[in-house]
Amino acid sequence: VTELIKAAVLTAVNKPLEIQEFPAPAPSTGGAVVTVAYAGICGTDIHLKSGNLPVPMPIVMGHEAVGTIAALDPALSTDINGAPLRVGDRVVWSNNIPCGRCHECLVLKERTLCKSRKIYGINRTSSDAPHLLGGMAGQIALEAGTAIIRIPDEVSFEEVIALGCAGPTALHGMLENLTIHPGDTVAVQGSGPVGLAAAIYAKQMGADQVILLGAPASRLELALEIGACDEVIDMGIYTDSAARLEKLRQMTAQERGADVVIECAGVPAAVAESLDLARPNGQVLVLGQYTDHGATPINPHYITKKQLKIFGSWGFAEAHYVKYVESLPQLRKRHDLGALLTVFALEDVNEAMDTVAAGQCTKAVLKP
Amino acid sequence: VTELIKAAVLTAVNKPLEIQEFPAPAPSTGGAVVTVAYAGICGTDIHLKSGNLPVPMPIVMGHEAVGTIAALDPALSTDINGAPLRVGDRVVWSNNIPCGRCHECLVLKERTLCKSRKIYGINRTSSDAPHLLGGMAGQIALEAGTAIIRIPDEVSFEEVIALGCAGPTALHGMLENLTIHPGDTVAVQGSGPVGLAAAIYAKQMGADQVILLGAPASRLELALEIGACDEVIDMGIYTDSAARLEKLRQMTAQERGADVVIECAGVPAAVAESLDLARPNGQVLVLGQYTDHGATPINPHYITKKQLKIFGSWGFAEAHYVKYVESLPQLRKRHDLGALLTVFALEDVNEAMDTVAAGQCTKAVLKP
Amino acid sequence: VTELIKAAVLTAVNKPLEIQEFPAPAPSTGGAVVTVAYAGICGTDIHLKSGNLPVPMPIVMGHEAVGTIAALDPALSTDINGAPLRVGDRVVWSNNIPCGRCHECLVLKERTLCKSRKIYGINRTSSDAPHLLGGMAGQIALEAGTAIIRIPDEVSFEEVIALGCAGPTALHGMLENLTIHPGDTVAVQGSGPVGLAAAIYAKQMGADQVILLGAPASRLELALEIGACDEVIDMGIYTDSAARLEKLRQMTAQERGADVVIECAGVPAAVAESLDLARPNGQVLVLGQYTDHGATPINPHYITKKQLKIFGSWGFAEAHYVKYVESLPQLRKRHDLGALLTVFALEDVNEAMDTVAAGQCTKAVLKP
Amino acid sequence: VTELIKAAVLTAVNKPLEIQEFPAPAPSTGGAVVTVAYAGICGTDIHLKSGNLPVPMPIVMGHEAVGTIAALDPALSTDINGAPLRVGDRVVWSNNIPCGRCHECLVLKERTLCKSRKIYGINRTSSDAPHLLGGMAGQIALEAGTAIIRIPDEVSFEEVIALGCAGPTALHGMLENLTIHPGDTVAVQGSGPVGLAAAIYAKQMGADQVILLGAPASRLELALEIGACDEVIDMGIYTDSAARLEKLRQMTAQERGADVVIECAGVPAAVAESLDLARPNGQVLVLGQYTDHGATPINPHYITKKQLKIFGSWGFAEAHYVKYVESLPQLRKRHDLGALLTVFALEDVNEAMDTVAAGQCTKAVLKP
Repeated sequence: VTELIKAAVLTAVNKPLEIQEFPAPAPSTGGAVVTVAYAGICGTDIHLKSGNLPVPMPIVMGHEAVGTIAALDPALSTDINGAPLRVGDRVVWSNNIPCGRCHECLVLKERTLCKSRKIYGINRTSSDAPHLLGGMAGQIALEAGTAIIRIPDEVSFEEVIALGCAGPTALHGMLENLTIHPGDTVAVQGSGPVGLAAAIYAKQMGADQVILLGAPASRLELALEIGACDEVIDMGIYTDSAARLEKLRQMTAQERGADVVIECAGVPAAVAESLDLARPNGQVLVLGQYTDHGATPINPHYITKKQLKIFGSWGFAEAHYVKYVESLPQLRKRHDLGALLTVFALEDVNEAMDTVAAGQCTKAVLKP
Repeated sequence: VTELIKAAVLTAVNKPLEIQEFPAPAPSTGGAVVTVAYAGICGTDIHLKSGNLPVPMPIVMGHEAVGTIAALDPALSTDINGAPLRVGDRVVWSNNIPCGRCHECLVLKERTLCKSRKIYGINRTSSDAPHLLGGMAGQIALEAGTAIIRIPDEVSFEEVIALGCAGPTALHGMLENLTIHPGDTVAVQGSGPVGLAAAIYAKQMGADQVILLGAPASRLELALEIGACDEVIDMGIYTDSAARLEKLRQMTAQERGADVVIECAGVPAAVAESLDLARPNGQVLVLGQYTDHGATPINPHYITKKQLKIFGSWGFAEAHYVKYVESLPQLRKRHDLGALLTVFALEDVNEAMDTVAAGQCTKAVLKP
Repeated sequence: VTELIKAAVLTAVNKPLEIQEFPAPAPSTGGAVVTVAYAGICGTDIHLKSGNLPVPMPIVMGHEAVGTIAALDPALSTDINGAPLRVGDRVVWSNNIPCGRCHECLVLKERTLCKSRKIYGINRTSSDAPHLLGGMAGQIALEAGTAIIRIPDEVSFEEVIALGCAGPTALHGMLENLTIHPGDTVAVQGSGPVGLAAAIYAKQMGADQVILLGAPASRLELALEIGACDEVIDMGIYTDSAARLEKLRQMTAQERGADVVIECAGVPAAVAESLDLARPNGQVLVLGQYTDHGATPINPHYITKKQLKIFGSWGFAEAHYVKYVESLPQLRKRHDLGALLTVFALEDVNEAMDTVAAGQCTKAVLKP
Repeated sequence: VTELIKAAVLTAVNKPLEIQEFPAPAPSTGGAVVTVAYAGICGTDIHLKSGNLPVPMPIVMGHEAVGTIAALDPALSTDINGAPLRVGDRVVWSNNIPCGRCHECLVLKERTLCKSRKIYGINRTSSDAPHLLGGMAGQIALEAGTAIIRIPDEVSFEEVIALGCAGPTALHGMLENLTIHPGDTVAVQGSGPVGLAAAIYAKQMGADQVILLGAPASRLELALEIGACDEVIDMGIYTDSAARLEKLRQMTAQERGADVVIECAGVPAAVAESLDLARPNGQVLVLGQYTDHGATPINPHYITKKQLKIFGSWGFAEAHYVKYVESLPQLRKRHDLGALLTVFALEDVNEAMDTVAAGQCTKAVLKP
């Protein structure tokens, strides 16, 4: 008899996810089957459920996951780095497969802009075999072309999943755009997973002073506790942008403002504020504007006058995921990443989703 | 008897400039006296006269000029490049002298951001000797620390002054921020001197297709005639931004938009339009927002989604002026720079200023 | 009856190429068949024939070609840029297909370093169908994954083939490593196809003074004639490196040396000379050391003392070929690229190879 | 009566330094007098004494020092960052004053290449007043134009002097040339002060694995102890370059070699080895070749084939010293910098110099 695998399936907008069962898949040519250890819940999942971002349904949700290789097609013998791959290996994978042949992939070399990317848990329906193409399940079927990465021995599953897709997302934008020097001050707007990841990587890239602007207070305390930042500006206390600017200036040398500002807040007005928080000739990374919330008043005079450099970055591709995993051995020595996690059983997926939607935990993950 | 030198002096806001006479200066220690061949009139001069930008008065106006060395202090024996300097040499000079010792000059290495820059014709009053510290005069007294540059033999005075301070301004922003590849499409918003300079340098840096968005039609025709651009979008015909975007898309390969957009229009709304004109992962240089005209609605979602790179740039310092002069031998072979000029006598300075204010000529210069 | 297609086949090291006939191929899935207009002969082909670079044999030679689409698989409807592709279109293509999945392709993002690249005319034997996997033939069978590029209407076949693979090779190294500013002096060592391409692109990227060091005199005259460079240093006259250095210094401002040096000579000693020719803080691009000719004495003190930046670059991938074709409309306006060509009939391939080996022509191409 | 200040003076090549006394200086216009807390001894000092690097004599030696402001000219009210400066402040300063007006300073923007730099302790004789222009003295007279930097409260004198001029030297080369990503492997050749500083900054800039190649074993142990590196290759054990290459490959993922190699060994042959240690498309920084030891065999084929990026860097200027001090608050939290020091009394300068020359301590400093 074929084993049955449980999965959390979205069948219609705004309906609770259903736990369905599918036959355990066999690896396709060049592919692998992974037994999921944890699947993360991301803010994007809340948007998928509410229909803000249309997806094919029914769908096994989950674009963040880690696990152990259960079965391997003979055509697949190494991970993306060339390391040998065997059943039983602990792995993670880039959740998206760009086409690799279009103008965006090959000429712009920006695989994140590929218009025909396949994304596990986001645009892969469960209606046809192998069904299990999302992370919120006992197993996931990884197809040929997926960038699978072996997890270094000293890194735990918990440490890989703690930042979820926010880790490679922040890393992508920061590595490809920002210059952070030892001694720099970096301000991060937003204390969600992307903001926390950006703060942690700012420290990692040499910043001396990382200032996190966010809320609620408990989240900021956790960020300080795990060393994700050095100082915080609580938006519950500094409720308007003028007060935050004044406070940040007082915190920085000669009241110059931040060398680098990383916007991870997701609110359009935050970007206008970024231009104020940055010092003359400073850098601004706009990471948080995934969703189109429309226009906001911005004064472009400051771009010219302050000689700012402003960068946008979207998602991540294989290279960023590889760099993410490479960074973890160092990261875990400096920060208790596991402290970010709240673990739910797969069956409690709807409760977990509600908790994320309410902002009541830092990082919710499912354990199938 | 001491020779008397005529100069155009602004004595009060909105008053016509007066032609005054000052004693011919002797060079100060490490300085030089230059007999002015041409002094350019810049859009900024119109702002100075109208009081939009406050300046000390009385002031000999003119921050753009070229001329011949009339007298030289013995302590000054070479130009900024180390070439020998002699009486009779044709020269040009960077119009501003940053302090060279502050955080901006030495640590940020952005001398344009120096708060105590001295600028000929802008913040040097004529009330005290040597009086002649602006270009709109028979002679100008250059002080020690001024970056003087010998003009290459094959380059005429007219060719140096044709782009005025717009040349080094465009070059500064473009060299330090933009990556232009052979074959690229560059869109330039604005057909004033900065726009024309940006278009010419885009060609020079390898762009295949330079599209100039501006007005009036006569200016665009001149731009095409001297090869400053390849194609134009006449804002008199394409009056709204949606029409210009549609037109530009049709002009570019696969309707992708421009690889690089250079904003030289000066209107805040132009910057919102820049983000639309740029292709995914494209670059935007905001050169035109010198004056604070307030905020404009901008949708930051496009910065993230399109992964844009947006740069601001302000003025220029010595290095940019040197690069400007180095670029002229090549520029003059490709473009009839002299065609941009309208020459007025020094005495006709007020008529010349009115012509510039009315946008009735491309580049007005005074011949003392 | 099936049409038969002639091809120049290398069957053994140092044996003359044979003209063999193969059945006209049909396009494979996602592929195309192209009727070859011209196939270039490259210095590498001489090495292949002599066995310096081992290749599978028999092999249809030719890794440089242009032609017209004869047949198209329905799965292939656009070129790499997304432009529609139809039978009868004039096209060129990147001669190599990296795997797109390895560490080099995806993480380093250096597809030129991919260890399993397939290269037409170099590592594709003609022993099995479709046989015609090299450019020196009446037709070539392009497989799925080949980056095919439509040639712009105003560009002729002759203009595309004139620089051969030297065009994208030079462009790759230059675009990804060098900063060339308007007004710069660029010295190019070597006047073979790579040297000529590097010189032409240096002009294109804004250099004011391009100095070509090479031989024989006739090649240098041609380079001057088509505007590939501004000045030359004839190695037949300046036979030792000290004399060349002295000459170059005299040609440059304040005897500083070249802002950028591009080594395309292929002789190890040329690289030691590059370090001398470059000005303090200058850039050196080592393009010419494809073949391992062993070590040469180099004084690393100058790397530290002069603060040099030295870059190596190898071959090209799809993006560089696309940029190459995008650059041609501008290039052809400035340079008579066709003047570089010497055309031979396909049947005269051995005579053409001998002419190239003897250095008796600038660029030999075969017309099938 | 005027106070007398002791200083260590070099009066002739290879003669022991003499302790001489000079009258306590008053600050010159725009200058300051600093009471020296510590003066470092650098490998360069050994070269000065032995005549390898000619200096004017007699000279108060010492180009590395820290101390307390004893007197301040009224014209000097802030440090280079704009922070207020008062008598009693703990300070450090960039040891060199570039002219700020030459082509190198202003156009190349490479103040380290300025030919007329004044350097305390290196090209300032003690024959004339104020005599005290070197750090190995009770006081030093800092002139106008010296970039003085207030030491952050939490940073001790010992922590500033521990890396000596090796700190800003390494930082200069690394910040301006290298791209180090979280997770990268950096190999540092040489375990002297520059090598240790490079290793520490590699960690600081995000490297996960820093491998130090050097000797003797005790130095390597200290480096491991203070966390300057993660792993070592003892050149006393791995005595030839092939063995070191083999060892390094085994230590790196998939035996690829190091992402970045920083040469701080000072031996020409080390640079040939750098090219081997670097992975394909890796970066090499040549920091150690200050002295001209002549040519060494290098195979340039690897520069092309591996697509290497090789950078040279020389000394430092004000900006690098400022960044150095800014980095210290973070550095001291991660590394016990004080463990590097061996303290000697000023009077024991000759013993201290001998100890440095014999390689018997990591960093010798004098306490006046």
